[in-house]
Amino acid sequence: MDPDAVAKAFVEHYYSTFDANRAGLANLYQEGSMLTFEGQKIQGSQSIVAKLTSLPFQQCKHNITTVDCQPSGSGGMLVFVSGNLQLAGEQHALKFSQVFFLLAQPSTADLMCYLYVAFCYQMFHLMPTPQGSFYVLNDIFRLNYA
Amino acid sequence: MDPDAVAKAFVEHYYSTFDANRAGLANLYQEGSMLTFEGQKIQGSQSIVAKLTSLPFQQCKHNITTVDCQPSGSGGMLVFVSGNLQLAGEQHALKFSQVFFLLAQPSTADLMCYLYVAFCYQMFHLMPTPQGSFYVLNDIFRLNYA
Repeated sequence: MDPDAVAKAFVEHYYSTFDANRAGLANLYQEGSMLTFEGQKIQGSQSIVAKLTSLPFQQCKHNITTVDCQPSGSGGMLVFVSGNLQLAGEQHALKFSQVFFLLAQPSTADLMCYLYVAFCYQMFHLMPTPQGSFYVLNDIFRLNYA
Repeated sequence: MDPDAVAKAFVEHYYSTFDANRAGLANLYQEGSMLTFEGQKIQGSQSIVAKLTSLPFQQCKHNITTVDCQPSGSGGMLVFVSGNLQLAGEQHALKFSQVFFLLAQPSTADLMCYLYVAFCYQMFHLMPTPQGSFYVLNDIFRLNYA
């Protein structure tokens, strides 16, 4: 696994989903996930998405300036993003920084593998599926005021 | 343990040490520690401190604007800082964001406890010592350009 490639793919997926369909971000969080948004602490996928979908703007576009990542504890990955947030109808973009701590979630392939091991003596045939993905354990967002 | 109190104490200690005696930061990193400084990746306490002490300015003062923290994987803690970096002789401060992933290192009290268990049949008397501290596993620094 190339951490930089994973981070880049995650960042592209996260912000394109945010800009097109914020409710779709629910799949990236779990019940133990935490978001600190401009100092406000929110926990759990449902509450996090409720917060993100209730922000006081509808259309927006994130333009990413930097993405840094490092492997971290528990096999997780730290991803640090800076960029500009352009709101529809606003002349000036807002600068922001955001940090994510990502953890791998077992892939369907992993689960299939467990099933295969459990039932292998019966020679079940199980189709391999795409590789595992990550979920967001920690998410901290801040606007960078001039 | 109150994560906000730990984060606040860490941030005060880190930046006051940085501003007064950068070489003293060596105690906060270990061999597995990683720093990404403006995109440059550096690993290990010695290399990290060599980088920090070779930055092209001598005197500086960090003024902290925001500190956010969340408990994270492996019992670690994510700390996200934004602020201004004032360099001696410069009129304008530089805005920066920095993220740390902190892990607890065993305290002297923990080590004493291990020793006590090892030697308890001889009834050694061992003095308890202050609580454990944290070290920096991950550190990512970025200037926020206007």
